Amino acid sequence: MDKPQIGVIGMAVMGKNLALNIESRGYTVALYNRTGAKTEKVVADHPEKHLVPSYSITDFVASLETPRRIILMIKAGAPTDGMIKQLLPHLDKGDVLIDGGNTFFEETVRRNNELDESGINFIGMGVSGGEKGALEGPSLMPGGQKSAYDLVEPILNKIAAKAEDGTPCVTYIGPNGAGHYVKMVHNGIEYGDMELISESYNLLRNVLGLDVNEIAAIFKEWNQGELDSYLMLITAEILIRKDDQGTGKPIVDVILDRAGNKGTGKWSSQSALELGVPQSLITESVYARYISALKDERMTASQTLQGPAFKVADADKKELVEKIRQALYFSKIMSYAQGFEQMRVASEHYDWKLKYDELAMIWRAGCIIRAQFLQKITDAFEKAPELKNLMLDPYFKGVTDKYQAAVREVAALAIKAGVPAPGFTAAITYFDQYRAAVLPANIIQAQRDYFGAHTYERTDKAGIFHYEWYHEE
Amino acid sequence: MDKPQIGVIGMAVMGKNLALNIESRGYTVALYNRTGAKTEKVVADHPEKHLVPSYSITDFVASLETPRRIILMIKAGAPTDGMIKQLLPHLDKGDVLIDGGNTFFEETVRRNNELDESGINFIGMGVSGGEKGALEGPSLMPGGQKSAYDLVEPILNKIAAKAEDGTPCVTYIGPNGAGHYVKMVHNGIEYGDMELISESYNLLRNVLGLDVNEIAAIFKEWNQGELDSYLMLITAEILIRKDDQGTGKPIVDVILDRAGNKGTGKWSSQSALELGVPQSLITESVYARYISALKDERMTASQTLQGPAFKVADADKKELVEKIRQALYFSKIMSYAQGFEQMRVASEHYDWKLKYDELAMIWRAGCIIRAQFLQKITDAFEKAPELKNLMLDPYFKGVTDKYQAAVREVAALAIKAGVPAPGFTAAITYFDQYRAAVLPANIIQAQRDYFGAHTYERTDKAGIFHYEWYHEE
Repeated sequence: MDKPQIGVIGMAVMGKNLALNIESRGYTVALYNRTGAKTEKVVADHPEKHLVPSYSITDFVASLETPRRIILMIKAGAPTDGMIKQLLPHLDKGDVLIDGGNTFFEETVRRNNELDESGINFIGMGVSGGEKGALEGPSLMPGGQKSAYDLVEPILNKIAAKAEDGTPCVTYIGPNGAGHYVKMVHNGIEYGDMELISESYNLLRNVLGLDVNEIAAIFKEWNQGELDSYLMLITAEILIRKDDQGTGKPIVDVILDRAGNKGTGKWSSQSALELGVPQSLITESVYARYISALKDERMTASQTLQGPAFKVADADKKELVEKIRQALYFSKIMSYAQGFEQMRVASEHYDWKLKYDELAMIWRAGCIIRAQFLQKITDAFEKAPELKNLMLDPYFKGVTDKYQAAVREVAALAIKAGVPAPGFTAAITYFDQYRAAVLPANIIQAQRDYFGAHTYERTDKAGIFHYEWYHEE
Repeated sequence: MDKPQIGVIGMAVMGKNLALNIESRGYTVALYNRTGAKTEKVVADHPEKHLVPSYSITDFVASLETPRRIILMIKAGAPTDGMIKQLLPHLDKGDVLIDGGNTFFEETVRRNNELDESGINFIGMGVSGGEKGALEGPSLMPGGQKSAYDLVEPILNKIAAKAEDGTPCVTYIGPNGAGHYVKMVHNGIEYGDMELISESYNLLRNVLGLDVNEIAAIFKEWNQGELDSYLMLITAEILIRKDDQGTGKPIVDVILDRAGNKGTGKWSSQSALELGVPQSLITESVYARYISALKDERMTASQTLQGPAFKVADADKKELVEKIRQALYFSKIMSYAQGFEQMRVASEHYDWKLKYDELAMIWRAGCIIRAQFLQKITDAFEKAPELKNLMLDPYFKGVTDKYQAAVREVAALAIKAGVPAPGFTAAITYFDQYRAAVLPANIIQAQRDYFGAHTYERTDKAGIFHYEWYHEE
């Protein structure tokens, strides 16, 4: 066997699958895991593969071609710092460490700075696509030194998912934390997509009264058009599956309605708040998971708090299905508009020079939010790299013109029916806020100046003013 | 003059006013400011007062009665750390430092821990009520060592605002960062209250077509009933004021609709996200300020993005005014329900043992969110200290029964009219989420298990399950 061109640390499922993916492209891969048994098993399970196990950090590092390329697929946080500390004495200037975990971008910025002082390159790389993506081709979002990226680019190009036109779903995102930041926003957008699909399901099921098979058929049909996406596809698939524990029920009817999360959606919203970006749709999606988790409280409240009596006329149902489809597409666009606005502001704030057309491009395959319509985002930013908001692109503006009546009707219907649709309502509200020449923030500024002398600006001239509220009485 | 019983550091308007307030209750107050000129001016402006200026930290500390009581009214962050560092060599065990600034609670926790090691007491105290409150009687939220609170309680009781029944608006909030945390949520709630009033104004003005004087009269009337509050009162007052720069217009029509913020609302939302608490109304209020700040983008978008054509029938207007009033009260209750839920979860997380009835009680006067209805919150928590959510209290449940039809109609109207009402829609959506026995989070869990093997729980038995999505195809 060749000397390994790259090493992977961490033999949990993501690390193992990524190593197998790399090996399958013609590379020899060094393997290391904190507990040796896992490494042994991977090698034993794949005797024919070009895998080189090591059972000490010293051996692992020594086994690699130089400059060394090492991917960490381990737990974010303290374990990552611990592993870097162990590796550091064995590394040489110019080596490339890649953190492929779900790391908070500020940690990546810090590690990149710290390691850069020792001449070690550090790439924080978002890896999307789950276990299957890691094995067959993920979408990759690497950020760090450009020269370090160049050293791993050939490998990343080979292991990444390929879009329909054959382009690999990887590109150089930007310096230090840029890759993990973009992955974080990707995950936030994923929360939004999932929330919007679940709201559509809820309306179809609990307002229109359709059953799971009817909804599966509708989602399958939607997946043939503008809404063509991995999440739409798998949700249609999920809805027709039967419970595997013998109840005979659809599996969705035995799955508890308490959503978990791994924190990346939360980080995304916290960062939007920090940067001053209105990112209501993702935030509402995070909160929707939180409130779903309060199952016991909700069960109590459902016994106490009344809702409205509301029925949809049978005659309106068919039209409503199409209106919900339009509302879903409209709302999805608002969510991406917010996500891309967040990345633009972050890029300016952290000086990352993100290329928005490429971000949409590398999400077209491999990752959870892969979808046809991402091509429209790429097109929009290729035409206008300085585009302030997706809604201002002619294609997306056209969708808002055509579909806003539907989303207004669906959101109003949800409110009147007492069926919560936080994603849909956040979407139309954001649209109406963004296109408002005048908002009632003048009242807020007047109040702030009244009680706190916080001053105000004027519509008719520049400057900072204070009104003598108390002296005029 | 007596030896000063207390000292104030920081002679900007808040520190000066607080010092004058304390002096007016019969105390002698030591004063210090980084630049001596400000201290000189305060003393020169009030020659008859019992104020003892110092122009060095050594003299200032030496001038005080022991155990020393020192209130810092300076900039949060590094300046506060710098001042503490300067003071520390001059202090003795048992002295009490009070930070009355708008400090992020985690910093207060840290400082309390650090100083506690040297035997110095540290109180982080929220001070609400603006300049006027500081001078005439603020609402005070002190957190720190209980024994230290006891040393300053007599002074705080005297300087605090008094509720109608004469109770001072101050109480011991809890250990370390509890006071600043509660103040932070108070400010978040303030953002919500202001947003909801501004939305009501916007609907009255831009959907019903009323003028500022009509709206002022409506707000004045609302202020006589359930909505009786300081912010309602001042908004009615603001609406009748004329521009003082000679345009002859109502002042609100020349104030630019770009809202500022000092970060406490943002912190409040970030903490809710961190703790897993759905706090959508405050968050939407923060985002509404952010989007208002994008004035230039909005002006561009308003030229491009179309809205709906919508008119309210004249015959419906009178009824709609009352419905907006009901929507405002309902939404305000949802905002407080979220804020108190956030404080409950924080109290458990940080082990603060907050007393919710007392929190509502000390907000009844002095602070910006003072309002009659806070008594209802006090009553609710006095009856049921373990109350999980305000909505479950009989009084508040009664309001939701009576007013939910109105808020549904008003929120739907806003959406159809294209006039954004993020606070109202967040309120009714939260209500419908919280009272939902079943939410569509089962779809989200199924998706997560499908693409990431994140497992799911079941409705019919305990345990963690994974469905073999790929093997059944």
